[in-house]
Amino acid sequence: MPDERERTDTSVDGREEQAGRRNFLKGALAAGSVAASLAVEGARIPAALAQQPGMVPGTTNHYYVPATDKTVHWGYFSKLLRPLLELNSGDFVTIETLTHHANDDSERMIKGDPGAESVYHWDRQRKGVDRRGAGPMQPTLFGRGAGEGLGVHICTGPIAVRGAEPGDILEVRILDVKPRPCANPQYKGRSFGSNAAAWWGFHYKDLLTEPKPREVITIYEIDASGEQNWARAVYNFRWTPQTDPYGVVHKIIDYPGVPVDHRTVQETHGILKSVRVPIRPHFGVMGLAPSEVDLVDSIPPNYVGGNIDDWRIGKGATMYYPVAVPGGLFSAGDPHAAQGDSELGGTAIECSVTGTFQLNLRKKATLGGTALAGLNYPLLETQDEWVLHGFSYANYLTELGADAQSKIYEKSSIDLAMRDAFRKMRHFLMTTRGLSEDEAISLMSIAVDFGVTQVVDGNWGVHAIMPKNIFG
Amino acid sequence: MPDERERTDTSVDGREEQAGRRNFLKGALAAGSVAASLAVEGARIPAALAQQPGMVPGTTNHYYVPATDKTVHWGYFSKLLRPLLELNSGDFVTIETLTHHANDDSERMIKGDPGAESVYHWDRQRKGVDRRGAGPMQPTLFGRGAGEGLGVHICTGPIAVRGAEPGDILEVRILDVKPRPCANPQYKGRSFGSNAAAWWGFHYKDLLTEPKPREVITIYEIDASGEQNWARAVYNFRWTPQTDPYGVVHKIIDYPGVPVDHRTVQETHGILKSVRVPIRPHFGVMGLAPSEVDLVDSIPPNYVGGNIDDWRIGKGATMYYPVAVPGGLFSAGDPHAAQGDSELGGTAIECSVTGTFQLNLRKKATLGGTALAGLNYPLLETQDEWVLHGFSYANYLTELGADAQSKIYEKSSIDLAMRDAFRKMRHFLMTTRGLSEDEAISLMSIAVDFGVTQVVDGNWGVHAIMPKNIFG
Repeated sequence: MPDERERTDTSVDGREEQAGRRNFLKGALAAGSVAASLAVEGARIPAALAQQPGMVPGTTNHYYVPATDKTVHWGYFSKLLRPLLELNSGDFVTIETLTHHANDDSERMIKGDPGAESVYHWDRQRKGVDRRGAGPMQPTLFGRGAGEGLGVHICTGPIAVRGAEPGDILEVRILDVKPRPCANPQYKGRSFGSNAAAWWGFHYKDLLTEPKPREVITIYEIDASGEQNWARAVYNFRWTPQTDPYGVVHKIIDYPGVPVDHRTVQETHGILKSVRVPIRPHFGVMGLAPSEVDLVDSIPPNYVGGNIDDWRIGKGATMYYPVAVPGGLFSAGDPHAAQGDSELGGTAIECSVTGTFQLNLRKKATLGGTALAGLNYPLLETQDEWVLHGFSYANYLTELGADAQSKIYEKSSIDLAMRDAFRKMRHFLMTTRGLSEDEAISLMSIAVDFGVTQVVDGNWGVHAIMPKNIFG
Repeated sequence: MPDERERTDTSVDGREEQAGRRNFLKGALAAGSVAASLAVEGARIPAALAQQPGMVPGTTNHYYVPATDKTVHWGYFSKLLRPLLELNSGDFVTIETLTHHANDDSERMIKGDPGAESVYHWDRQRKGVDRRGAGPMQPTLFGRGAGEGLGVHICTGPIAVRGAEPGDILEVRILDVKPRPCANPQYKGRSFGSNAAAWWGFHYKDLLTEPKPREVITIYEIDASGEQNWARAVYNFRWTPQTDPYGVVHKIIDYPGVPVDHRTVQETHGILKSVRVPIRPHFGVMGLAPSEVDLVDSIPPNYVGGNIDDWRIGKGATMYYPVAVPGGLFSAGDPHAAQGDSELGGTAIECSVTGTFQLNLRKKATLGGTALAGLNYPLLETQDEWVLHGFSYANYLTELGADAQSKIYEKSSIDLAMRDAFRKMRHFLMTTRGLSEDEAISLMSIAVDFGVTQVVDGNWGVHAIMPKNIFG
């Protein structure tokens, strides 16, 4: 990431996009029947409830948010975004999320899919979603495009939770995660993802073989039915300069969603033969809008979550986020089919998925004595574990001053993330288990596993895993 | 660890100890029946073989190496140590190992145990094992004691493998790991370990509560029968200045094996109530003698293994080490009952255990096309995984020059260890699986988990875990 970031335009959406967003909301809300206007799925919701036309007080509703050019924000979080929906605590929502790497192979990841096509639309006249990143809309910094690619993830949302206020905790239960089937009849029954070994990867300046440096895209295939729990490589290609429909040449992967012209690249098939990659479908990005800044680059994770890139944030897991702005403003994106701890080369298998969530608001006054007391960082709970996420900077937006959004990329360090993960786990054990500092430190030495979450997101991550069964 | 290390004495053993070691070997070997003079255990050895009096060509023998003042080297590795035994490839050996923290509670970890008592013996006249560490025998550097505590682990060995030469690989299969039962009748049926939150811990300069800084010992109890797979805390105490039998005052834990006078410390019982720590019995230290230097501090891990401190190096695991000196010279020590990835506070549950191993020599000429081809680092194989160990410096003894053994403590870094782990995993995938660099990097991003092994051993560690089932 370039160091000399600045923003000359703090508007969140272009005028057209704002209007579009409002129109979507009007359409959905005008009839007073949000649920009825949205597809409903999920065996977890009683059919009677799921078919409720609108919100019945005291019941839970199940909303559906498709991914379209009107429902996504690309490359940034913002407290200024008007929410798509406002839910009650306890409501369910199914959210489609799209990978921002779909244009690495549009035949397999976009073609025939109206939602993806609307988001990725880009011809000489118009982009489906113009702003991509938290940079200026007029790309005066680097000339890459609107938003300058300072932030890359397609996020669906935000969704507000009624009554959520700073100091509360939003509990997000991930009930289901399903790969998005390829809509191109040629690849029926399959889903596809892209893995980019890119310039922001840990390996990039440390390659052995020529040509150096290089960026390489590997396309993976998974079974859309979910019956096969592994991915396999289809082919790879070396990135070549790509000219986008506005005429800008992208020598490297410096702007999200640039269509790759496959006449300009050499596909190598037959790679990674007989290799089966276990899939771990999850969301690289899930989180709330921070309060500090109007427009926040989606890449560095933060105290309200965001791009944590922990593969454990998948089906069955629950995330807890501190609410920083009214309504919380929850978004999800950066879907992954599989990732290793560290996300070494820069990305996972970036693969569109649809998630079903339950959002529960935990009011500040009710948190005392619970595992959420004093929580000021994103916390993951799985069936067997508590997982805390440390970053090089716990809240870089306040710690690194006015230029925080560029400085964070200069200060990436696992050592610092380990320090933060240690402090958070100590806080967690002392606050929620009532341990003394000495008890907490001993327990961390003998029973907590610290791992490298990612070394590619500016604000690098170390997670700390505490098995629940330690506490009788 | 102090920065200003140097050594004025390169002798490996004091004169008495050398003589003692030779006498042990004479006693064992003179009758021509090593096996007969040693206890034999383990259902894996046919009874007929196990009872062989001595070595029968073409058969496997099972040796037993007790831990005594004559069979251990304390705080260092050395190619100059005369081996206790020379095995044939394929032979079995059961090795007793003692924790160097047993004197934190001698009533529970030493009393009544002849082996431990001989090692820990220390009165005004004599220490059972004088040299503790790779420093000078006359403690002119810091005045701590012989060897200056520049290296702390009690290692049992070394054991030579017949025909092992530099370039070969020694495969060490860990067939069993059993806690050493407490020999004090008062605590029958139990084993004990000590966890020190010490000055070399990651937390030490970052404490919240007073007094700061402080060192804290926590004593844990485990079931010696192995029926209960968890440990529980018994009590803890804050380290107070301890005067050793030679009159040296140890204000901090600066020399291994100093007897703690429990009249000077305050035991706090009732800590970590209802906490059960899952046990993961393993060897913190296992490895071979390096070739670079005569006397090597046992603390920083290295290309020949040593103090890797990965809890996965337990029962059922296999380690592969590059042989650096004739015979290999294998030793084991630093036994642990449980440890978390990172070993945050400085130690694990340090608990004496006995291991049974099979040592297989893999000659250089036979390695081509196997997972061991070109292996120049310690490699762990479990039933399901390959685990590679990266360090801040892969071979600090050569990389950091003449003062390597002090400099390594100034250059600890997880970032560097991550770099090394990445390079090793890339080498492993390219060499042993025939992958291209692009295939290897993609696979590492989506399927290899990188974790923090330890941040307390000078040469910090990151491990990389590759699931075997990825390869059909």
